[in-house]
Amino acid sequence: MLKDFEAKKHESNDVLNTEIKELQAKLLSQQQLLMQEKIPVIVMIEGWAAAGKGTLIKELISELDPRFYHVVSPKIIPESAERYPFLCQYVQAIPVKGKVTFYDSGWMENVVRKYLNHEITKDDYRNRIREVNEFERQLRDGGYMILKIFLHISKRKQYERLYKLAEDPKTEWRVDRDDLMQHKEYKRFMEAYDDFIEKTGGKIGWHILDGSHNKTAVRDALKLIVQKVDVAVQDGRYEGAIFEEEFPLKEMPKLSEVDLSVSIPDDEYKKELKRLQTRLSELHNIIYRKKIPIILCYEGWDAAGKGGNIRRVTYALDPRGFDVQPIASPLPHELNRHYLWRFWTKLPKTGHICIFDRTWYGRVMVERLEGFCTEKEWKRAYNEINEFERMLTDWGAVVLKFWIHIDKDTQLERFNNRENTPEKQWKITEEDWRNREKWDSYEVAVDELLQKTSTKNAPWYIIESNDKQYARIKTLKIIVKALEKACEKHFKQMME
Amino acid sequence: MLKDFEAKKHESNDVLNTEIKELQAKLLSQQQLLMQEKIPVIVMIEGWAAAGKGTLIKELISELDPRFYHVVSPKIIPESAERYPFLCQYVQAIPVKGKVTFYDSGWMENVVRKYLNHEITKDDYRNRIREVNEFERQLRDGGYMILKIFLHISKRKQYERLYKLAEDPKTEWRVDRDDLMQHKEYKRFMEAYDDFIEKTGGKIGWHILDGSHNKTAVRDALKLIVQKVDVAVQDGRYEGAIFEEEFPLKEMPKLSEVDLSVSIPDDEYKKELKRLQTRLSELHNIIYRKKIPIILCYEGWDAAGKGGNIRRVTYALDPRGFDVQPIASPLPHELNRHYLWRFWTKLPKTGHICIFDRTWYGRVMVERLEGFCTEKEWKRAYNEINEFERMLTDWGAVVLKFWIHIDKDTQLERFNNRENTPEKQWKITEEDWRNREKWDSYEVAVDELLQKTSTKNAPWYIIESNDKQYARIKTLKIIVKALEKACEKHFKQMME
Repeated sequence: MLKDFEAKKHESNDVLNTEIKELQAKLLSQQQLLMQEKIPVIVMIEGWAAAGKGTLIKELISELDPRFYHVVSPKIIPESAERYPFLCQYVQAIPVKGKVTFYDSGWMENVVRKYLNHEITKDDYRNRIREVNEFERQLRDGGYMILKIFLHISKRKQYERLYKLAEDPKTEWRVDRDDLMQHKEYKRFMEAYDDFIEKTGGKIGWHILDGSHNKTAVRDALKLIVQKVDVAVQDGRYEGAIFEEEFPLKEMPKLSEVDLSVSIPDDEYKKELKRLQTRLSELHNIIYRKKIPIILCYEGWDAAGKGGNIRRVTYALDPRGFDVQPIASPLPHELNRHYLWRFWTKLPKTGHICIFDRTWYGRVMVERLEGFCTEKEWKRAYNEINEFERMLTDWGAVVLKFWIHIDKDTQLERFNNRENTPEKQWKITEEDWRNREKWDSYEVAVDELLQKTSTKNAPWYIIESNDKQYARIKTLKIIVKALEKACEKHFKQMME
Repeated sequence: MLKDFEAKKHESNDVLNTEIKELQAKLLSQQQLLMQEKIPVIVMIEGWAAAGKGTLIKELISELDPRFYHVVSPKIIPESAERYPFLCQYVQAIPVKGKVTFYDSGWMENVVRKYLNHEITKDDYRNRIREVNEFERQLRDGGYMILKIFLHISKRKQYERLYKLAEDPKTEWRVDRDDLMQHKEYKRFMEAYDDFIEKTGGKIGWHILDGSHNKTAVRDALKLIVQKVDVAVQDGRYEGAIFEEEFPLKEMPKLSEVDLSVSIPDDEYKKELKRLQTRLSELHNIIYRKKIPIILCYEGWDAAGKGGNIRRVTYALDPRGFDVQPIASPLPHELNRHYLWRFWTKLPKTGHICIFDRTWYGRVMVERLEGFCTEKEWKRAYNEINEFERMLTDWGAVVLKFWIHIDKDTQLERFNNRENTPEKQWKITEEDWRNREKWDSYEVAVDELLQKTSTKNAPWYIIESNDKQYARIKTLKIIVKALEKACEKHFKQMME
């Protein structure tokens, strides 16, 4: 805790310089080991204004190969970032395997400052703390080494440093209103930092370093990194634990229990389609203006009719306000990061609709069944996905998930039809036939994910699609109803 | 030209509907051909406010597989985009091979509106027209199919449409100040659009479509796309032409003429290093505040000392204000786009420094020598690169390019040293030895690029690096001098 922090006596510069040189050389040699072991490293440097975060990072990287690290300084948050979940900008910058990202202040500074500035409510604050803890745990379980350092200086030291900066015309501009505000309210900030440190301690833990003496801070930070990398390299890539929280769930039937005989007459289909598309179009305008983000997730059997279903939805939307994200096998630069990274970076901004044509559920379907991830990894994923989706709905997003469902015979019929129709042949591949052979194992996996991830906030809907027209109408109805509810909720919140 | 445009009589809706259906089906079948031929397609829909751009795009995509296209609507330009060259936001969205990007207004709208709003000068306007022409030619030469459509409506029709939108409370918000301004100054806008259309006609050409009747516009646009795709698929990927403009060049010696015996005594090195780093640090503050972007390009022989040279530069910089971009072989998602795309997307924002550790010159070195691109492609690249760099310096960037130079014996010595020193072994690979065998062909390629791309605005500097300390001092001196000049130039411009 900052309030109990006691600075130790500083050693002589000569002693420190020697130690720093040795540690820098050690870190340089560790580079290769991290690459070999494919361990991605996150070093977060938080701390007071004028505590020397920049100077510290400069020394930490001074001997490193520039190909090996990346420095991120999200202190000034661009307006555009405000239209995404607050962690988004940090997630974007996570390192690939074997490399290091240094954050020159990160989510701690963001959350604490917004809270003290009354830009977020107490509830938001609590949610963000929880999201930070979940995010860090997920990264750690995903093999990331994380080191969190808080660079501490006393109010008196901060005064001296800010004065020195402000006095010199060359550096005067570097003292901004936020810094002065922080200094004036040093005590309030300290309490807030302490609260954040306490609530985000957990397994990764914080290291409070004395920033009043630059060389000491550099030496101490280097020591921490070098030690931690040593352990990480020795232990190899951390495999993570399985953690399961209870989420409020919606009851789901088993796929085998679903009645697929439902259908809709042609004339009713046409009438309903028109009505629902018109309504959806109106709602799109409203959610655009109210800045509500919408995330529609499509999963389903091959040839179940996902594409046609999606087209009936998008036809009602203004192309300026939606995006369809087709999800295929991850590319190398995606495989080299946490598996959710490629979805984080595809989220819609507020007021926009994103339709995922296949989703992060690949983790507990194809990746599980084809052995593209370990058992621990896919077993852990249910909880990680529930957390990810809760973060999205807490942010204000509407998240709807559709399982487009058909039976095995219908799939065979459609496969054959595709093979026999020249313009449709591109839609059918060897892989589809291979997947079909694994129908039963897929059914087990799908049943399990429907049971475990149909949360109240981000529910699954099974869409009976033997009759594609029935499926489209059902999906549109669910979307329309959910958007209406979201608009009403938004209005209620404004009236509170 | 818009001023001569005469709308034809519209056919009946029934006729149009049938044609549209047929064309949509045709386009759907072309999807696969485009994928097979790996042809990336850009469809730009420009036009008047309320001309029906959104509606048109909606119809164009309505039958397409969402995995196949992407709609970009850069009408509202985020503040963050203003800190990059103006084409950047459009370049980011170019499609991968085999896919389509629809731009719902693009660089035309951007340039014309900014010019009419007096946000850019007449000179800027002229430069941007040139950059657009260069950019489109480069894309076309790079195998992109580009279709540019302008959706035209009369002033009277625009009035009717805007009135209808404004009258309905549901759509009222969609009529913004820009639209009203455009309507009031319809004539001035028409002249400006005409000017832009005339100046960016060229090989790709504009298609002016009548927007007063939606179905006609949809039919006509579909027809254009389908025809153009037909031709593109028949001809296969366009290989491009070689185009060479004369750029003002700085005279460069041949590598073999460079005297590599130059060196610097240790004590002078230390003194100079300190002095130059201190000065560079000051200048970094200034360029940060003046928002001047800096691009430093490093190329050179393996083991020439690029890494150490870069570190001496970065050590003087605030980590918050610079980025090192190590350039390795392109990843699949990079290979699937224009070869300059991965550099466009790594440019620094204004006031920041980007150091490229290897660069776009790979095109005329390794890609040329290893046959990773065709002869036409690398021969065309000199001019493309000169254009790219002129765009950067016109934007206001300082672009400096360093060839870190050593002789063959020195390289051998350093290679052996690396192999015999355990902590350095990671720095030497089989590939380095293979490249060494090709020294002579590389020398030819380097001599050629130095002759052809050392433009006055973005010059090359050969850095003698047999003595690494000499090389570092020389590089720092060049950077310091260039930044001083840039600051002075910036001051002069302010005083004008």
